[in-house]
Amino acid sequence: MQAAYYLGNKSFQLREGEAILPQEGEVQLKVAYCGVCGTDVHIYHGAMDKRVRIPQVIGHEVSATVSAVGPGVSGIEVGDQVAVRPLQRGAVDPSDNEQHHIGKNLKFIGIDTAGGMQSYWNVPAYTLHKLPENLSLEHGALIEPLAVACHDVRLSQLKTGEKAVVIGGGPIGMLVAMVAKHHGAQVLISEVNEHRLELAKTMDFEIVNPAKESLEEKVHTFTSGAMADVAFEVSGSQAGVDAMTQVLRARGRAVMVAIHPQPRQVDLFRFFWRELQLIGVRVYEAEDFEEAIQLAASGKLELEKLITQVSPLADVQKVFEAIDSNPAGMKYLLQI
Amino acid sequence: MQAAYYLGNKSFQLREGEAILPQEGEVQLKVAYCGVCGTDVHIYHGAMDKRVRIPQVIGHEVSATVSAVGPGVSGIEVGDQVAVRPLQRGAVDPSDNEQHHIGKNLKFIGIDTAGGMQSYWNVPAYTLHKLPENLSLEHGALIEPLAVACHDVRLSQLKTGEKAVVIGGGPIGMLVAMVAKHHGAQVLISEVNEHRLELAKTMDFEIVNPAKESLEEKVHTFTSGAMADVAFEVSGSQAGVDAMTQVLRARGRAVMVAIHPQPRQVDLFRFFWRELQLIGVRVYEAEDFEEAIQLAASGKLELEKLITQVSPLADVQKVFEAIDSNPAGMKYLLQI
Repeated sequence: MQAAYYLGNKSFQLREGEAILPQEGEVQLKVAYCGVCGTDVHIYHGAMDKRVRIPQVIGHEVSATVSAVGPGVSGIEVGDQVAVRPLQRGAVDPSDNEQHHIGKNLKFIGIDTAGGMQSYWNVPAYTLHKLPENLSLEHGALIEPLAVACHDVRLSQLKTGEKAVVIGGGPIGMLVAMVAKHHGAQVLISEVNEHRLELAKTMDFEIVNPAKESLEEKVHTFTSGAMADVAFEVSGSQAGVDAMTQVLRARGRAVMVAIHPQPRQVDLFRFFWRELQLIGVRVYEAEDFEEAIQLAASGKLELEKLITQVSPLADVQKVFEAIDSNPAGMKYLLQI
Repeated sequence: MQAAYYLGNKSFQLREGEAILPQEGEVQLKVAYCGVCGTDVHIYHGAMDKRVRIPQVIGHEVSATVSAVGPGVSGIEVGDQVAVRPLQRGAVDPSDNEQHHIGKNLKFIGIDTAGGMQSYWNVPAYTLHKLPENLSLEHGALIEPLAVACHDVRLSQLKTGEKAVVIGGGPIGMLVAMVAKHHGAQVLISEVNEHRLELAKTMDFEIVNPAKESLEEKVHTFTSGAMADVAFEVSGSQAGVDAMTQVLRARGRAVMVAIHPQPRQVDLFRFFWRELQLIGVRVYEAEDFEEAIQLAASGKLELEKLITQVSPLADVQKVFEAIDSNPAGMKYLLQI
């Protein structure tokens, strides 16, 4: 088997190895595709060297076929096609409030433990979601990021007919927009990258480039003065944080999807003045994976448009270099 | 009649005048008591000179007896004892989302228009809430700030048995704590002013001085490691904003009660990481006034303890000077 090890310093190395038999409660997967997440790119840039254990196999957006089943596992059989919900349970902390998907001692598989950029990968059986026959394994690798979007939209309490602004049109922003639209919202995508705006346009989204025109005025027009019901902050930028409080109506909801590593200046006066709400959202729960699978299998989302390139695992180094240099890139998949 | 005019530059002037007959839809009140709000102190300090129209009568925490009823008013009679909900409706804006109490064109009576620090005061009839006979007019002047607390607790969705941290133990913080306790919550008050902590202690609240011990550790102990369900940010300080994200459990709610005139550094990562929520809250709706009146009349809240001093209107200048110099002060009332 082949495995791509992140070595630190923006470099990967392909190593040969032996597949390991699954232990109690585990399943051995023959990985089909592994998508490259923004977090993987952060790891590649060295931003998470304290968290990963170099050399480490990373990757967590996986579709696979079950190749072996460990002792004590039921309901999963060799040959099943699956997606992986890469959350490894930890000891329950009283402050978790029974929200196990964001538990204090949770481990994220593919970051805190070995990931899916390898031919065979053992994971706990409880992380698996079966894929239906009419869903390709290629699209199966998009289930994990799509489940993020399903979670974000679910927690936003978005209702049919509401108007949503998605701030940041990368892969997650685009998936949030697609899911929000599927739930009956009208969606405006705010993005500074013209390639991404062009892509959003082909999917019939309203678009705005806030570097070229006033986002607030655009939202005013888009909503006939009512302003947005929901704003998804997916940009991770100070400008995005500034924008989210400006585009909302009274009692509008800002949804914090992006990771902001440092504290940001937030207009708390506006939260007070217009009784806004901020809703933090992270990863997903089982039901979000189920919704993502159903949505992807329905064919109603134009997922194909998000896949920039499918490359063999052997090209892993080139793929990460391409992501860094291609402003038109969206989702890169590794075929394992 | 007498009226206290704010002249700017930390000064008030008492003027004699004639009571004016109420116009269509208005009621003339013989003001009994007018409490001094933190906002009035801000006005006194000159911080709102752009908003008030000097010389102006200010004050909006009023109890009164109806002295005349204008044309077109029904349901209110001369002699009725009332509290005033000092929100004057403006033209509805589409972005108001039918939240008229925080409408874009709302005027706050006593700030944007003449207030209650005068013997006779005309207000729209729809701003009045009748006070029951068993509620003193002195306590009636506390209905407005108590309604703020009722609104804040209502919007926090506080449930019986939950643990709440109130950050900032001034008059509003103390009222929020009292209402939260009345709703069955266990309440910890965080405050740096030792006089206020002493007062809180006499009302059987758990207390902490975050300048002397770790607030986070105190909350950990207070909640047996579960951390707080709700944190009310009433301090208006950067330290309070830092604290609110630290004391909450997963999916805990931070309630933004305080006015933060400038943007604050907010730990948005923690909102993401623990799926926290921020809920902006401002003023009140009619139902909050009704709850406040019911609560005050029930005698279940130790409102008496919040009243530092009752002074005649003629002493208005001295009262504002005392507020600035007395760290043990809570609520000052003017007897009109």
